[in-house]
Amino acid sequence: MSTDDTPLPGDQTGEDGYLLDRKLVARILFAVDRGEQQILGNLLEKLHAADIADLLEQINTHDRARLIRLYDREFDGEILSELDESIREEVIAILNPVVLAEAVRELETDDVVDLLEDLEEPQQEAILDALEDSDRAAVEQSLSYPENSAGRLMQREVVMAPEHWNVGQAIDYMREADNLPEQFYHVVLVDPRMHPVGNVTLGRIMGSKRTLHLADLMEESFQVIPADQDEEDVAYAFNQYHLISAPVVDSEGRLAGVITIDDAMVVLDEEHEEDILRLAGVGESSLSDSVAGTSKRRLPWLAVNLCTAICASLVISQFEATIAELVSLAILMPIVASMGGNAGTQSLTVAVRALATKDLTGANVWRVIRREALVGLLNGLCFAVVLGVVGMLWFGSPMLGAVIGSALVVNMVIAGFAGTVVPVVLDKLGVDPALASGTFVTTTTDVMGFFIFLGLASRVLL
Amino acid sequence: MSTDDTPLPGDQTGEDGYLLDRKLVARILFAVDRGEQQILGNLLEKLHAADIADLLEQINTHDRARLIRLYDREFDGEILSELDESIREEVIAILNPVVLAEAVRELETDDVVDLLEDLEEPQQEAILDALEDSDRAAVEQSLSYPENSAGRLMQREVVMAPEHWNVGQAIDYMREADNLPEQFYHVVLVDPRMHPVGNVTLGRIMGSKRTLHLADLMEESFQVIPADQDEEDVAYAFNQYHLISAPVVDSEGRLAGVITIDDAMVVLDEEHEEDILRLAGVGESSLSDSVAGTSKRRLPWLAVNLCTAICASLVISQFEATIAELVSLAILMPIVASMGGNAGTQSLTVAVRALATKDLTGANVWRVIRREALVGLLNGLCFAVVLGVVGMLWFGSPMLGAVIGSALVVNMVIAGFAGTVVPVVLDKLGVDPALASGTFVTTTTDVMGFFIFLGLASRVLL
Repeated sequence: MSTDDTPLPGDQTGEDGYLLDRKLVARILFAVDRGEQQILGNLLEKLHAADIADLLEQINTHDRARLIRLYDREFDGEILSELDESIREEVIAILNPVVLAEAVRELETDDVVDLLEDLEEPQQEAILDALEDSDRAAVEQSLSYPENSAGRLMQREVVMAPEHWNVGQAIDYMREADNLPEQFYHVVLVDPRMHPVGNVTLGRIMGSKRTLHLADLMEESFQVIPADQDEEDVAYAFNQYHLISAPVVDSEGRLAGVITIDDAMVVLDEEHEEDILRLAGVGESSLSDSVAGTSKRRLPWLAVNLCTAICASLVISQFEATIAELVSLAILMPIVASMGGNAGTQSLTVAVRALATKDLTGANVWRVIRREALVGLLNGLCFAVVLGVVGMLWFGSPMLGAVIGSALVVNMVIAGFAGTVVPVVLDKLGVDPALASGTFVTTTTDVMGFFIFLGLASRVLL
Repeated sequence: MSTDDTPLPGDQTGEDGYLLDRKLVARILFAVDRGEQQILGNLLEKLHAADIADLLEQINTHDRARLIRLYDREFDGEILSELDESIREEVIAILNPVVLAEAVRELETDDVVDLLEDLEEPQQEAILDALEDSDRAAVEQSLSYPENSAGRLMQREVVMAPEHWNVGQAIDYMREADNLPEQFYHVVLVDPRMHPVGNVTLGRIMGSKRTLHLADLMEESFQVIPADQDEEDVAYAFNQYHLISAPVVDSEGRLAGVITIDDAMVVLDEEHEEDILRLAGVGESSLSDSVAGTSKRRLPWLAVNLCTAICASLVISQFEATIAELVSLAILMPIVASMGGNAGTQSLTVAVRALATKDLTGANVWRVIRREALVGLLNGLCFAVVLGVVGMLWFGSPMLGAVIGSALVVNMVIAGFAGTVVPVVLDKLGVDPALASGTFVTTTTDVMGFFIFLGLASRVLL
């Protein structure tokens, strides 16, 4: 901890909470400009690795390269762990290989795995070569588990004890062991076949008599994680069952490692990021991506949207004669589509989120679909009245008001229905509903909105 | 842990991960139907409280009431903690007051606080009355902190030690203490004025010689949380600095309690839920809300959308004569608006997310705005070519193709610009950008899309 008077970003509270201090950033960049290695080192030393990583992400490429070259002699491996993927490759390419090797050797093996996953082949090799043999073997074994699995997430060092031990034995064992992991919160109890049977917290061991059996002190919430389980489910289990750490088992149920809640929290955060970005059709993305990279990544969903927009236009073109006769239809028709699209997005977001939290299941899916359609009906009726009146006053035609009101009601019921059914069906098919639902639902509400409104108008008004 | 052969939901892996087993749900509902209290008790005993809460949320009101009445004698307080707010009030109203009092007394005080926050006055009183005097005082003191603050989140029992103690003293103290909290992972070191100066993990204490000073074993990552800090910032700090627990201090910097990562993870999850739902204009919501409640809650944003849609229609109406002369404009105009809306949503989602993770700051905001506008330009140019060709082939007019292409480019640049500027400005003004950005951005792209396309067409084509 720093005893200096300069406030750390984490020491600040209030509105800007943990934002990096702008003045500090300015002082760092000034030191980089003047090539003052000593001052730069002092300024960065006060920052947490995660904050240095944020700083590197926020400054531009040119400043980043100069900063790293100047700071080169003492690069903290943790910073690499915390960096965004795109920036990380850039930083590794700049770093002096000797410094890189040193930085990586400091890291725990699960952090090295996390680092390697996203790198290209030659950079991977460089880092593996930097490791000691035993660490390298551990890293390579972790990499043998599927991507995004519990096996990749776990750390391999576990503090365990036979289930028949008592508190005294456990304490003596731990106090004599000379290679306890840096962070551990539980002793995992195992049976003779090395199957984990329960967790005892260190606090419980500290507070209990030496003669008590560990088996009698086990925590109630205990979950065993299969090594091939998807990390998304791991994060769900930690959140649902309030786990602090959980043992990971191989396909034969033997203890293979342990996952701690801080890793699960990172996964939870990433999954959320993915969901929120996918719902907007953005996919993986980071603020530090280049213009060309970002364009390319957003293009596919815009292309899909173009196709669906053209579909909607094709529907409109079927009513060309109707519109030519009554231009007010062209003026009003976007309202029907827009309201349907909004209502559909509301329903689908609720459904996508409920699927992610496993709250939308076979037990309540029909009830939810019915509810969403009814909500669409109710809100549709409210706005139909408003819009009917607007249509009547604006264009002086009660029938036009009635047509747009009716079209709105129907489209909003369709929105509620599609907004729930589409994500549920995609989920059943194994497609991520966050990724594809939006397009399907808004296409439906656009096409149906134009069709119902113009179709009704052509029958009733002409 | 159950030694029965029936699989627990958490024991299952594969695609459906931790989903509640449908057969188990069916068996539970069957037992409720036949009023078989013993069988129901046995079935529920195997489930984690969080899973029972999920079950209660997923079944309908009628089944829920019958289940609770049948299960009444042994209701676990944890289930109440895990329930959704709307269902929780319902369940508390059904529960026998004696059983409710018993259930609440089992809970830790921070869970009681969490429970009380969302309840109406009379239900709050009933629960406070059920508590022992000391617990009641603790709960009432927590409630004196602002809502959604660290003070509400913390637990008051802290294991602490003077900074000059050594490992042996700490171990002896803990082994003699008879009221250690159930879950604790650190010993908090305090100075004589009770200001926290560092954390030592239990694992580190276990693994170190008795003569070593605690002050030499302190963790590097150490953050002190002010009691009035917003819980959102607390969750950010845990995630950013990989904290497991952090001491909370009052306004004089004295140790007041401790927050553990599992509580921070719940907050992180809730904040994400809020963001994702707010982006879709849904606000707080749960699958178990009633039709009327859901309608009412979604109405405001649909009303805002109606107003903005009418604005867009007003813009179109300015070009009534133009459209009457060239109906193909009415057919094509939704494409320009839709593409702009999509591109704007992409930009704004990235910006909203980056603001939440504090990655978008004064240091890079101009770079990001420029990037988003350039991405809009680049993608706009791509689609302008496509759309220009479509317009030409479909309507046989190269000039119409040129008009729609140009309008698209301009609107997509606007989308990229507005998609970043709007959330940044709202954030500066202290408004949640997730809540309001969408409406502003899509209104901009709709209005500008129609205006540019129809305006250009009326000058060039007529």
